[in-house]
Amino acid sequence: MAKKEVVAFGPFKDFIADGVRVGDTIHLSGAVSVDERGQTLHAGDIVKQAQHAYAHIAKVLEKFGATMDDITDETLFVTDMSAIMGSKDKMGAVFGARAEAYGGDPQVAQSLIEVAGLVSPELMIEIKVVAHV
Amino acid sequence: MAKKEVVAFGPFKDFIADGVRVGDTIHLSGAVSVDERGQTLHAGDIVKQAQHAYAHIAKVLEKFGATMDDITDETLFVTDMSAIMGSKDKMGAVFGARAEAYGGDPQVAQSLIEVAGLVSPELMIEIKVVAHV
Amino acid sequence: MAKKEVVAFGPFKDFIADGVRVGDTIHLSGAVSVDERGQTLHAGDIVKQAQHAYAHIAKVLEKFGATMDDITDETLFVTDMSAIMGSKDKMGAVFGARAEAYGGDPQVAQSLIEVAGLVSPELMIEIKVVAHV
Repeated sequence: MAKKEVVAFGPFKDFIADGVRVGDTIHLSGAVSVDERGQTLHAGDIVKQAQHAYAHIAKVLEKFGATMDDITDETLFVTDMSAIMGSKDKMGAVFGARAEAYGGDPQVAQSLIEVAGLVSPELMIEIKVVAHV
Repeated sequence: MAKKEVVAFGPFKDFIADGVRVGDTIHLSGAVSVDERGQTLHAGDIVKQAQHAYAHIAKVLEKFGATMDDITDETLFVTDMSAIMGSKDKMGAVFGARAEAYGGDPQVAQSLIEVAGLVSPELMIEIKVVAHV
Repeated sequence: MAKKEVVAFGPFKDFIADGVRVGDTIHLSGAVSVDERGQTLHAGDIVKQAQHAYAHIAKVLEKFGATMDDITDETLFVTDMSAIMGSKDKMGAVFGARAEAYGGDPQVAQSLIEVAGLVSPELMIEIKVVAHV
């Protein structure tokens, strides 16, 4: 077995790692907008939820000595596609928060999927990334 | 092209590999609770479906000389989030089956997503993992 | 930070890369059936949408000097599972288009998921792949 480096400090740390590194690959758990007890933050506000998720991702990467620049792939799972794609303003708000999180236009592969639900009913977005260092 | 090592023995082996390894990375197909003809097993029982899926995953990994310990990332696609998150008992049952499959608290990144449907209507959970050896 | 090689030429290139390579791993964005302005092509025809998506994937891989043979993992996100699994004919049509795209029976891990929606309402399938070269 290759040596795993594990980071686990989030609200679900008893069940899942926040991130796992083997070799040059880091897999992160899907990030959502929750507080340290796992309660949803920013209900009804997908932009703030995205900001919170990206901030968590940055924190996890930092513990591996990595940064947002190291992300190669992201999947956005959203519960209401129209909250992003419904208008240019909505799209601008979410992708603006994303550009801010990455510190510019990210060079990242992306999939954007509307799902039936996330872990808690008030969550609107979950962000799953893979990084390579 | 890098050399692919392919494992294919499941009910859908004419269409998809059960797992593919290149270098130190192994991608597995999403595992579901089906018999050798692809018919759903354990309809209505998400715990038994999860057990069946994890058992298949372990079997695929074994053919690569790998184990559950080598899994770094898992995505659980479920058709009814409340079957896991609806109560502490339900969550305990599914995550208990998972801990048993991994032989303890797994050090694995996870995303848990409610989807609109899986390959067959009676399937409640599909488990997709990535391993690094 | 490892050196990223980025390919971005599709309709969403201002926001996302079509593909990102680090080391021997290439992550591609989920591919959908859209024209160069991002408008849906082949509304109502999942087979033609799949053909279009696979053709885009082949084009992205080509820019990395890779081919469909290098794909190790694919996830098919569909908005109506019965459009594939509803009959042997439907399944044969989609998997036939897939076999044609790969130039034979692909040796690829696969997950097939029904989602609540894709980026545009008339899209029926999104194909996300990982390749290793």
